[in-house]
Amino acid sequence: MYSIDGFQFSGIHSGIKKSKLDLGLVYAKDGASFALVTTTNKFAAPGSINARAVQTSQDKLEILMVNSGNANALTGKKGLNDIHFLLKNLGSLLKFDAKKGLLFSTGIIGKNLPLETITNSYKKLVSGLKNDAAAFSEAICTTDLVQKVVHKKIIINNEEINILGTAKGSGMIQPNMATMLAFIFTDATISSSSLRKMIKKVTAESFHRITVDSDSSTNDTFMILASNKKQKISQTDEKFLEALCEVAAELAKKIIEDGEGCTKFVEIQIQKAKSKKEARDIFYAIANSPLVKTAIFGENPNFGRILCSAGKIKSSLVADKVDLYFGSYQLVKGGTILAYEKNLLDKYMKNKKLLITLDLNIGSSSFSGWTTDLSYDYVKINAEYN
Amino acid sequence: MYSIDGFQFSGIHSGIKKSKLDLGLVYAKDGASFALVTTTNKFAAPGSINARAVQTSQDKLEILMVNSGNANALTGKKGLNDIHFLLKNLGSLLKFDAKKGLLFSTGIIGKNLPLETITNSYKKLVSGLKNDAAAFSEAICTTDLVQKVVHKKIIINNEEINILGTAKGSGMIQPNMATMLAFIFTDATISSSSLRKMIKKVTAESFHRITVDSDSSTNDTFMILASNKKQKISQTDEKFLEALCEVAAELAKKIIEDGEGCTKFVEIQIQKAKSKKEARDIFYAIANSPLVKTAIFGENPNFGRILCSAGKIKSSLVADKVDLYFGSYQLVKGGTILAYEKNLLDKYMKNKKLLITLDLNIGSSSFSGWTTDLSYDYVKINAEYN
Repeated sequence: MYSIDGFQFSGIHSGIKKSKLDLGLVYAKDGASFALVTTTNKFAAPGSINARAVQTSQDKLEILMVNSGNANALTGKKGLNDIHFLLKNLGSLLKFDAKKGLLFSTGIIGKNLPLETITNSYKKLVSGLKNDAAAFSEAICTTDLVQKVVHKKIIINNEEINILGTAKGSGMIQPNMATMLAFIFTDATISSSSLRKMIKKVTAESFHRITVDSDSSTNDTFMILASNKKQKISQTDEKFLEALCEVAAELAKKIIEDGEGCTKFVEIQIQKAKSKKEARDIFYAIANSPLVKTAIFGENPNFGRILCSAGKIKSSLVADKVDLYFGSYQLVKGGTILAYEKNLLDKYMKNKKLLITLDLNIGSSSFSGWTTDLSYDYVKINAEYN
Repeated sequence: MYSIDGFQFSGIHSGIKKSKLDLGLVYAKDGASFALVTTTNKFAAPGSINARAVQTSQDKLEILMVNSGNANALTGKKGLNDIHFLLKNLGSLLKFDAKKGLLFSTGIIGKNLPLETITNSYKKLVSGLKNDAAAFSEAICTTDLVQKVVHKKIIINNEEINILGTAKGSGMIQPNMATMLAFIFTDATISSSSLRKMIKKVTAESFHRITVDSDSSTNDTFMILASNKKQKISQTDEKFLEALCEVAAELAKKIIEDGEGCTKFVEIQIQKAKSKKEARDIFYAIANSPLVKTAIFGENPNFGRILCSAGKIKSSLVADKVDLYFGSYQLVKGGTILAYEKNLLDKYMKNKKLLITLDLNIGSSSFSGWTTDLSYDYVKINAEYN
């Protein structure tokens, strides 16, 4: 059971999807401090647009509703009005200030939310509220094959602080803000303004280090909510910030492990670069290369494609300075290909988790991130999704 | 038969590949004017590096040799020395100035050229020289399923001028200069300096408008060679320039039609943008999106993924101004989704050639380019290629 003081959770089947859970609710009766980041996509969904406005005007949040099966994206003003209507309507069952509510959506793009289907299920949704977050975690999923939940306890001033994270996301993953939907709940006492300072670093250490397929979504959102039931945390508390980063990074990795059609989890480390930005750009050039991704699916240590993709973008990279490793096997030194034991490397490539390290040897900055391979199943899932 | 005054061609099996033709030769006995552009990849192959040096120092070219099956890439100084050795060695059979020779390579990255295999085949290569370019066109291919040859005649001052183009390329295609290997031969009389002025425009109208998989190659090269046997052409001759552009664009389209695993040829037009650069950036964001490409493979008119990929990059795009069309079917108007006849659209999506038009309605610049879908076969070809 996943629970956290000050939050109640619910997850039900409302009828947006055929049979799976599709509507989730989080209720913070006494209000929760919160911080959020949403997609930079120009076609940001009404759920993201609404959330940004609420963050600007509100210090506390009472309701977080999430539906799956329909992204309420590319739905314009009607999409935004639908959110306000649905939150207001929920207020008739559960007393809360509609301005202190958010509705996020994920699923098919370009369809209006089925309002009646949703409001008809409100009784069931509200009566399902309980301490366990499991049904909520399930209700926010789309093509996800597994639920993604991370729980961590830390001790601050002799008191136990709980951090609980949950996320959904599997395809359309190169968050330029945060991935699809990820929520971290804590019982710590901390102001919204402190959380809003912390969230940037937490995002950089987690959701800004992953890619499945280079596509940022219209609905990407990452939130941290605090119920203020436990120890007060200052905005400079390193231990708390580090714990948030760890939980967020674990969620990000779980999204990659469950990436659409994923058969390999690949960590790529770019080291000794001139700047962190360059290291990051090279990470994404490699991680998003279909040729690199299909080679990894084929368990082929194709260093040529890795270097080629690293070299295709503008950077300070110098070809005859780079070193390249698969795990502990060095394949390239100073731009020259080394002899290596093919048997050992072939065996390494059969691992589910792979590490690729590219040392540029021209500076002292580094960046590492996580990605998937590109398999038949990725094509199948995305050619058939309707 | 494809022939052109002033050039002799040969194509043989030397033994680099198991059984297919793998070594091509073009001989311009009286020298040919030439212009070339090569990859901007940081790991540019020795063949590209050598060609740039030759262009800087030479005004005429006598020998153009091309091997397939081995890219001579990531081979460093030895790779460059091997080129000089192979060109010099050929000089013992065919009298020419080794400085006026080029060797381009395409195939597997990271292996040294088999020098002896190549030199042992020189007699066969030279004795095979003839007017027909067909065997040469075949010898430069790798994963290509079809040969790509374009022939065009134009009349200038009452004289017939011939332009013959041939290219190879199927994967690792988002040329940032020119695609894999493309050569245009003409019998016109024109200086190297005029050709070098023209080639930029020709590239922009052709090889800089295509992508299969976002990966620029280490070996991308595009050349124009003129044998100076016919009419003299001035560097401002629009008719000749236009004909070069047409031949290059036809070759570029043929590369896309033969893209690895391609089942659809997709033209994407970005219109009414603020600048041509923005229009081009949006073209590539859409054309390289694995989600757009798999949807097209699935014959699914997924406008959501198209807009989402267009919106993921920095640009002046305004979400509620865009119009989107598949062929003549308008799906989105002013950012709002229109009702459309699903049957008709489903039928349109079954075409082998598709047109997607995105009007940004914020300016007067446009860019159009060509791409493929992303199919099971793309994954198969690239997971198994060794």
